[in-house]
Amino acid sequence: MDFSKVPLQTVERLSRYRRVLADLQEDGVESVFSHRLAELMGVTPAQVRRDLSIFGSFGNVARGYDVVELHGTIGRLLGTDKLQTLAMIGLGNLGRTLLTYRGFQERGFHIGPVFDRDSEKIGKVYAGRRCYSIDDLETVLPDFKCKMAILACGSSGLDAIVARLADLGIRSILNFVPCRVIPPQGVFIENVDLSAKLEKLSFLSKA
Amino acid sequence: MDFSKVPLQTVERLSRYRRVLADLQEDGVESVFSHRLAELMGVTPAQVRRDLSIFGSFGNVARGYDVVELHGTIGRLLGTDKLQTLAMIGLGNLGRTLLTYRGFQERGFHIGPVFDRDSEKIGKVYAGRRCYSIDDLETVLPDFKCKMAILACGSSGLDAIVARLADLGIRSILNFVPCRVIPPQGVFIENVDLSAKLEKLSFLSKA
Repeated sequence: MDFSKVPLQTVERLSRYRRVLADLQEDGVESVFSHRLAELMGVTPAQVRRDLSIFGSFGNVARGYDVVELHGTIGRLLGTDKLQTLAMIGLGNLGRTLLTYRGFQERGFHIGPVFDRDSEKIGKVYAGRRCYSIDDLETVLPDFKCKMAILACGSSGLDAIVARLADLGIRSILNFVPCRVIPPQGVFIENVDLSAKLEKLSFLSKA
Repeated sequence: MDFSKVPLQTVERLSRYRRVLADLQEDGVESVFSHRLAELMGVTPAQVRRDLSIFGSFGNVARGYDVVELHGTIGRLLGTDKLQTLAMIGLGNLGRTLLTYRGFQERGFHIGPVFDRDSEKIGKVYAGRRCYSIDDLETVLPDFKCKMAILACGSSGLDAIVARLADLGIRSILNFVPCRVIPPQGVFIENVDLSAKLEKLSFLSKA
């Protein structure tokens, strides 16, 4: 199937489907109807059927969807059925925190090579990973076969780093740096903007 | 106006409007038409006009919207025109990283009182904040007049902590703990699920 044709909002829901199904599996539920799944997801039953039919899951009129099977299918679609290695740029406070963030490992993500420009950090080992110089990106990164990277560095020269990552085959980037980055052709950038979430909460706390 | 009637998706866009307008202001742009704003936001011009009219901003046929004025209006709506103090529960790696996260302060948020259950941490000072015992929540928190809190603690007993925060007047919560929390009546919880973002990127890196 052509993944690039899947609507972005469906992709965003996939990971919530996976989580809801993991919870159902944990609770010992074997099968689930679209209306129950819709309730847990906060969408309409028609939306659930539309989303899942894109990936060839049509459920069963009498029993609904098989929880274990659907959970497995979505894991394969998300590529989280096997461990994936990510590169990380920047080993400041945030970068070091992410190295030990359990949520990543639990979902099948492992931070492999880490890069920094600080000579104090280069060559040292942090949470089991050796820190490489950002100057050695081109020689080090290819050995790790990463398709994804995390940006947890400063904002100076960020566009150039992103261009180098793209040239080295990085296809998607989780960006913690609070500044505008234009994604190169064929690269997807997801921004984590914690301040934007606080702004939303600030508005809602006045409501 | 009744804030509770504003659609959630409009609220989520507000903080992006604020950022786009801040960028325009920085670039010296004085006024902007809805179609240009729409382009920068990635929505339709009709959507922009609908969103902003909710808050009484109708622009000007000849000149468009006044950038400085609209930026100020949205800042007041978001409540980020004055510094807001947040409480934080949990002073592990993540909590300590958030204490020094510049993005918060830049957008008008300040982490005030911090709480932990670890007797090794209680009474010590981290990045200028004294760590209080979570047992003292009811006596310490009211002095700080917080409406918002950040959860960066472990998952055990989380529902009880959220219930206590709600009783103490906390209206909205930014939750970094990767587990299900049912919001008490009148409390809004925004979950930060970094693994879900990675799952989405993993899917897109295969597309």
